[in-house]
Amino acid sequence: MAHALRLAARGLGTTWPNPSVGCVIVKDGQILGRGTTQKGGRPHAERMALAQAGDASGATAYVTLEPCAHHGKTPPCAKGLIGARVARVVTALTDPDARVAGRGHAMLRAAGITVAEGVLSAEAQRLNAGFLKRVTQGLPLVTLKLATTLDGRIATATGDSRWITGPLARAHVHMLRMTHDAVLVGSGTACADDPDLTIRGLGARHQPLRLLIDSQLRHNADSRLGRSAKDHPVWLLHGPQAPDAARKSWADTGARLIECPEADGHLNLTEALRRLAAEGVTRILCEGGGTLAARLIALNLVDELALYQAGCLIGAEGTAALGRLGLTALSEAPRLKRLETQSLGPDQFTLWSL
Amino acid sequence: MAHALRLAARGLGTTWPNPSVGCVIVKDGQILGRGTTQKGGRPHAERMALAQAGDASGATAYVTLEPCAHHGKTPPCAKGLIGARVARVVTALTDPDARVAGRGHAMLRAAGITVAEGVLSAEAQRLNAGFLKRVTQGLPLVTLKLATTLDGRIATATGDSRWITGPLARAHVHMLRMTHDAVLVGSGTACADDPDLTIRGLGARHQPLRLLIDSQLRHNADSRLGRSAKDHPVWLLHGPQAPDAARKSWADTGARLIECPEADGHLNLTEALRRLAAEGVTRILCEGGGTLAARLIALNLVDELALYQAGCLIGAEGTAALGRLGLTALSEAPRLKRLETQSLGPDQFTLWSL
Repeated sequence: MAHALRLAARGLGTTWPNPSVGCVIVKDGQILGRGTTQKGGRPHAERMALAQAGDASGATAYVTLEPCAHHGKTPPCAKGLIGARVARVVTALTDPDARVAGRGHAMLRAAGITVAEGVLSAEAQRLNAGFLKRVTQGLPLVTLKLATTLDGRIATATGDSRWITGPLARAHVHMLRMTHDAVLVGSGTACADDPDLTIRGLGARHQPLRLLIDSQLRHNADSRLGRSAKDHPVWLLHGPQAPDAARKSWADTGARLIECPEADGHLNLTEALRRLAAEGVTRILCEGGGTLAARLIALNLVDELALYQAGCLIGAEGTAALGRLGLTALSEAPRLKRLETQSLGPDQFTLWSL
Repeated sequence: MAHALRLAARGLGTTWPNPSVGCVIVKDGQILGRGTTQKGGRPHAERMALAQAGDASGATAYVTLEPCAHHGKTPPCAKGLIGARVARVVTALTDPDARVAGRGHAMLRAAGITVAEGVLSAEAQRLNAGFLKRVTQGLPLVTLKLATTLDGRIATATGDSRWITGPLARAHVHMLRMTHDAVLVGSGTACADDPDLTIRGLGARHQPLRLLIDSQLRHNADSRLGRSAKDHPVWLLHGPQAPDAARKSWADTGARLIECPEADGHLNLTEALRRLAAEGVTRILCEGGGTLAARLIALNLVDELALYQAGCLIGAEGTAALGRLGLTALSEAPRLKRLETQSLGPDQFTLWSL
């Protein structure tokens, strides 16, 4: 199962709207087949592993998520495992999707296959957190990335921010982009930095969806995002008041425009994320800026914080990594749990869950 | 020598104005004597180790700093080693004190003792950094302590700061106080927090000197620092304009008043630290606040940053850990090198050198 989970981890960011699943088929201590969910979510991992195994009769299949039980665009994987006459299926999690929800396990048992559930379920929960959140809460998982000085700044008073962190940390951010379905920035960051939000290097064969929260469509369509929208998708989440001219310019780039309601003069972020989850997005990496980051945190929409810290000090005139949270007492401050610490050359990476 | 360095480390904070030295006397693979500089700087480590050894003839003495060669309040340690008829002396560093500066080594060699110098010198440099800086630059080593949220804040907008870090991190700060000669705060922190700056717990048998930078003597003499000044020393560094009434109230507490010149309406910090070094202070722990911390950094007076970070976010309205540095470009920002990373329960400790 540990091996199947590692296989599944490779697919993160590429299988949405489906979960990234890993499957390993073992017989007499030998691995006969290994599979992962393919790009775009199909074929499923079990199909890939069975195809590689050839004859899987009498084997054990380790699957990181309950095999599906419904006829979607492909026949159910539970049926596939039954047809291959495997003797035993071991799974990590029950699929909360209403079309599965235990029916996959039941179908296997009804066919006389031994089923063991819940193996390494904590690890599988974490791996599938985006998919599980989408299915159970109708929201995507959000990882917030901050790259700061030791005093929590992301730029000098004059806007100088290149580079606070070193090349290893910046490459690590690109790796993070690879494991997310989409990369998100706010209009302030888009206008200030003109980012293209693609993965460069790392042999990436897949680009994340690029998302811009831009209530008034302030960001210029003649920008890196606009000019590359035909090559890799760009979606703009804007408000009802966005000017028609800007809507037209952006539509001409090939970007997709998604109108969302506003609340208190801002785009309603919870609603915007609900729209994205409804479109199948499971994992979003938010890369700034500080105002959007603070609003996401204040609305309790952030799941993990990926913090890159450089051994550098800018002082109080610098731009804060995080905008206003509107706290009155320390007891209201969000508390995070450290999941991981890593040195990246001179910089330090820590991953926290909220 | 590694053992002698560990012995020396125990004395940090207690031996000023003298360095904390370790000495191990070995013969035929057996340790005959071990010594460290005693509280207040005397007796020296060599004397302690020789006394424990009894007969040290033919032995090797490992000493973390060149033995002294001058008659001060005690006869020279080089003479003591010669008198004990040791065969060999191994040292880590030459003592830069003008009264020694190689004369200790020369005296030993002239008496026919084999001398090896520079063993583990990098480690010894770091251990003796405070003493070396005082002797060579006329300034004490300054460690800046910051205890912050992940976004670099030390309090909410309403001043709520108890507690950002947990009990393990707070105990670690007390350990840090133990290894410094003095603990320093600015008047803002003193007025806001009324700290007593003593070491609580940890079985401490020694309290650090308590230093307050308070140009106008704004801090009330009827405060924790004032009321405890008779038990453990408190020194106030103030400007020429400090009111007479405040000078008198503070003098009545038993605190020592040190008048320093001003520069640009602030106390001249470089001069204030020079005065402290002239009084023998070698290692200062600065515990805030953000304005004093930023001024010390901007003046290049900070040697190490001890950073405690709690998994907590306060947002941009919170109080910044560090005041204004007055940078215009990122290239001017101080760059720090990470020396150490440690988990302290839910918090993270990192030590950086500037």
